[in-house]
Amino acid sequence: MPRPIITLTTDFGLSDHFVGAMKGVILTIAPNADIVDISHELPPYSVSEACFLVGEATPWFPKKTIHVVVIDPGVGSARRPILVEAAGQYFIGPDNGVFSMVRAAAGKSKVREITNPKWMLPKVSRTFHGRDVFAPSAAHLAKGAAPAEAGKLIADALQLRLAAPEQTNKRAWTGVVLKIDRFGNMITNFIAADFERIRTRPFELAIGFERLSKLAINYAECGYGELFVIEGSSGYLEISANQAHAAKKLGCGVGAPVELTLY
Amino acid sequence: MPRPIITLTTDFGLSDHFVGAMKGVILTIAPNADIVDISHELPPYSVSEACFLVGEATPWFPKKTIHVVVIDPGVGSARRPILVEAAGQYFIGPDNGVFSMVRAAAGKSKVREITNPKWMLPKVSRTFHGRDVFAPSAAHLAKGAAPAEAGKLIADALQLRLAAPEQTNKRAWTGVVLKIDRFGNMITNFIAADFERIRTRPFELAIGFERLSKLAINYAECGYGELFVIEGSSGYLEISANQAHAAKKLGCGVGAPVELTLY
Amino acid sequence: MPRPIITLTTDFGLSDHFVGAMKGVILTIAPNADIVDISHELPPYSVSEACFLVGEATPWFPKKTIHVVVIDPGVGSARRPILVEAAGQYFIGPDNGVFSMVRAAAGKSKVREITNPKWMLPKVSRTFHGRDVFAPSAAHLAKGAAPAEAGKLIADALQLRLAAPEQTNKRAWTGVVLKIDRFGNMITNFIAADFERIRTRPFELAIGFERLSKLAINYAECGYGELFVIEGSSGYLEISANQAHAAKKLGCGVGAPVELTLY
Repeated sequence: MPRPIITLTTDFGLSDHFVGAMKGVILTIAPNADIVDISHELPPYSVSEACFLVGEATPWFPKKTIHVVVIDPGVGSARRPILVEAAGQYFIGPDNGVFSMVRAAAGKSKVREITNPKWMLPKVSRTFHGRDVFAPSAAHLAKGAAPAEAGKLIADALQLRLAAPEQTNKRAWTGVVLKIDRFGNMITNFIAADFERIRTRPFELAIGFERLSKLAINYAECGYGELFVIEGSSGYLEISANQAHAAKKLGCGVGAPVELTLY
Repeated sequence: MPRPIITLTTDFGLSDHFVGAMKGVILTIAPNADIVDISHELPPYSVSEACFLVGEATPWFPKKTIHVVVIDPGVGSARRPILVEAAGQYFIGPDNGVFSMVRAAAGKSKVREITNPKWMLPKVSRTFHGRDVFAPSAAHLAKGAAPAEAGKLIADALQLRLAAPEQTNKRAWTGVVLKIDRFGNMITNFIAADFERIRTRPFELAIGFERLSKLAINYAECGYGELFVIEGSSGYLEISANQAHAAKKLGCGVGAPVELTLY
Repeated sequence: MPRPIITLTTDFGLSDHFVGAMKGVILTIAPNADIVDISHELPPYSVSEACFLVGEATPWFPKKTIHVVVIDPGVGSARRPILVEAAGQYFIGPDNGVFSMVRAAAGKSKVREITNPKWMLPKVSRTFHGRDVFAPSAAHLAKGAAPAEAGKLIADALQLRLAAPEQTNKRAWTGVVLKIDRFGNMITNFIAADFERIRTRPFELAIGFERLSKLAINYAECGYGELFVIEGSSGYLEISANQAHAAKKLGCGVGAPVELTLY
């Protein structure tokens, strides 16, 4: 029988003891758990980056996987710890909107506030709920505890608005850069399948001081450093440059506006 | 039956082959081992940082866990490879003081010099004992070898002095910054439980050019960027700033003096 | 029975969702797989760095290990996905030379083009074959599929020339820096066993503006920051500095020429 999988996604970095302490807590409670690192290099405090990463990485995992996400600027305050059930998987973390993309994609989901002291360490600190609340909760779930033991269902979990592009006239839309990846690819919020016409007809995508009109099939077909639009692996239109950092070339970051015009 | 756990803590970084080679050696000898990364991003050569990280992360692991720590500027010289038994867990690494905090917290511990050639690779290089000595030793222990097979007990393992704050007059103490974490929180060597009076009475904590007198319960209750004192998750007083980097704001680093005055 | 091991080596970094998505795909197909991270911090697009890292890390793993390597600037273009069998292990990645060192060391190897659609996800993107081709291929192999199911043997896989030092006169050779590790050690392509005479007789190794004539046995025997030559743990001559960054001191990088003269 496969071991229960617990994934970890945090902004803790890898030079401190935080991630190690969480892993120790999990393995003490659920020695059989298979801990899988997704990322510990999220930008500190960036709930929106974490929301995107969790939304893109977790759908590829098997049913029953338990995902622990700790990006938690409000630790120790009134924000609640929650357990989300969505798309057959479990998500544990703070109620700060970090699961918004997962929940929106799943359509329906259940959210419980984690209040059961048995799911927490005996002493809960004010500043490290990754170790004291989220890790032990995941481990108890992995050991076979029922989700309902976590606590009561809540209906008012924080759900971030995930902005779709807005149509500004008959042939034009305004969207936004959601994410810049390590290679400098700029992932926009234009879903490629909603704009299939750009595959066959002229278009212009304006970002920063550039106007792009080339849709590439892969990176390698373009000249070194050339900017182009491509359908990314997440299904969004991306702005890329072959073996170069598109975002640095354009001087734009997350949140930069993107204008699409179809001709 | 759960698999034997071997954790890894090194200053090897993640862009070289060192960590991969160690994992391969472990899995060749002990295919059943469960390898858990604690950190590979320790600052190169910093035994004191490693000592703190190991002291904070490893107590959370189950009994019998085997912790391999490779921060080893003296590799290939006369410094001995050691196996420490403390608090029901095992620690393998160089005899350079890196296990001082673990040993001090445990109260009593046994230390053996690893001399058994069967616990090492057939050819031991002069520069990579992580692969040639520490990884195979951990794997043999995980496979069921007795600790005594490693080599003889020694009584003179290097033990760093872990400085407690010094009292400078009736109401004042001088301590030091032990560690700065990824978020810029400055962990001091003042143990919060030893200074409970600051919870109810005025105090002043001087660091750099600042004098702090606010004790926060959590990060979120303070203004953005505001400096304050908080009881950290390791039980030490910490100097923090809400969603800002306290150490950069103060221009202070590890080893900076901290003066506490009670009123 | 030990779980099948799948290692991951990529240039994806750890702040994006790419590595997490690959792990999810693997665990969905082969829930029993033991995923081992070798590195996700390779410099983007650097096939030669990846080739060296894979060549140095993978020989330490047990037979039957499956190594997935994704450093893939040509993703989505005509470059083929391949499965290499060498030295009793499996290697999956793009046909861009990244397995050259492994294949050269093994002497003989078999290479197959991966063409079986059952080894890929139902929808293969143009930009993320790590998730859509390489991860599922590794998982099917881990589940017991025969290598021959991947596709046909090919004889023209790209093999990089791994340059050995050239003799320039009776007592002199010209080589090159292959790799600079995290500590600043400069790994040359001089195989120490081919130049044993330097252990007993005077020599001079010229790099940048320096001429080195000291062969050290270990780092610690030299003065802080002193430059010297040492036989590295990979069997190559390395240029190092005790607790200092040799490459920065010399102002040289990968590919810098190295001249060795024996006296």
